[in-house]
Amino acid sequence: MKIAILGGTGDIGEGLALRLAQKHQVIIGSRDEEKSREAAKNYNERLVSRGLKDEILGMSNQDAAKDAEAVILAVKYQYAIQTLQSVIDVLDNQVLISPIVPMSKTKLCAYTPPETGSASKQICSVLSPDIKLVSTFHTLPAARLSDLDDPLGFDVIVCADDEDAKKVVMGLVEDLGDVRALDGGGIEESRLIEALTPLLVNLAIRNKLKNLSIKFV
Amino acid sequence: MKIAILGGTGDIGEGLALRLAQKHQVIIGSRDEEKSREAAKNYNERLVSRGLKDEILGMSNQDAAKDAEAVILAVKYQYAIQTLQSVIDVLDNQVLISPIVPMSKTKLCAYTPPETGSASKQICSVLSPDIKLVSTFHTLPAARLSDLDDPLGFDVIVCADDEDAKKVVMGLVEDLGDVRALDGGGIEESRLIEALTPLLVNLAIRNKLKNLSIKFV
Repeated sequence: MKIAILGGTGDIGEGLALRLAQKHQVIIGSRDEEKSREAAKNYNERLVSRGLKDEILGMSNQDAAKDAEAVILAVKYQYAIQTLQSVIDVLDNQVLISPIVPMSKTKLCAYTPPETGSASKQICSVLSPDIKLVSTFHTLPAARLSDLDDPLGFDVIVCADDEDAKKVVMGLVEDLGDVRALDGGGIEESRLIEALTPLLVNLAIRNKLKNLSIKFV
Repeated sequence: MKIAILGGTGDIGEGLALRLAQKHQVIIGSRDEEKSREAAKNYNERLVSRGLKDEILGMSNQDAAKDAEAVILAVKYQYAIQTLQSVIDVLDNQVLISPIVPMSKTKLCAYTPPETGSASKQICSVLSPDIKLVSTFHTLPAARLSDLDDPLGFDVIVCADDEDAKKVVMGLVEDLGDVRALDGGGIEESRLIEALTPLLVNLAIRNKLKNLSIKFV
């Protein structure tokens, strides 16, 4: 599958690119095309050093999104809508994946959803109906995802209104490694899943733990 | 430690009584004193059959709460405030533990907090300041807790404004078996923890799983 990772030079983008590239064609996008080419080169070198294929491409966000079958919006909440609007003209029937969590951080984190109720609902409000939104990847710890020696071993919840798109993305989740994809319902439920990220961050801080994720046991 | 479990004849009360009785003096309470004595007899028989001490007592909710150092409000949300009010005259400096989750269920569950923001905040509003409220046990699957052969193996988040009371209850959580207690912050955070219960129920229904709990990995 051809997967574009917008903001693919960022921390969560890095781990997604390195892991998904082992089974898919990955194109990382950035506002700065030069930056995405450099990142792709760096990721490919890391893959080659492990005897893996070095086929990650770097492009502008718009070029990355154009021909992809799935587009991951791996940017911070505050850039989500503008990044989406910068590619919206080239989106055509893709699955759009949002790992986006609106949260504030001072000493601890707080979930700060927009008026629509969640980042995913807000994203839905600017999408045309042919683009299927899937909300997932929120609880992936970036540092562990980027460490290809980390077996992961956690669960990832996937929410979508379109059942076919949800199924496709649940497959992508399980392509990351030892990760179980769980059906979390529709986009309406995304609020509950997005709120898990600040919970994880705060639990880590309060209990002196690191890079927490979730497993349902 | 002397622990009263109000509503100790119910499903979560049963598991808490059977497990905590192995290290503490447990008194189960009920509106119906006869019912709590019968339940205590039944629980004691199950403990004896495993070669354990049979010292669980059954009393009215009020008698159970009177001399206890910790009082667990193990009743459904709709009975929480009235049960609390029925014992409030005998509460004096105890730690009060709330595992209460306000939720509605049709086919799936929804978290339905009161106007105060959470069950724990609502309970706080009727307590005198000498009673320290601790919010925990929400994600314990009752069936697994009652099965003394189940090793459990999950995490339980504990929220309280009083740090000493929180520490005491984190100790009780770890007395349940292979369970790790995690500091979840103050009562203000209880909303996030209470909301995990309907999430677990819905994940179980949607993914054909059973008796889910959480582990942070």
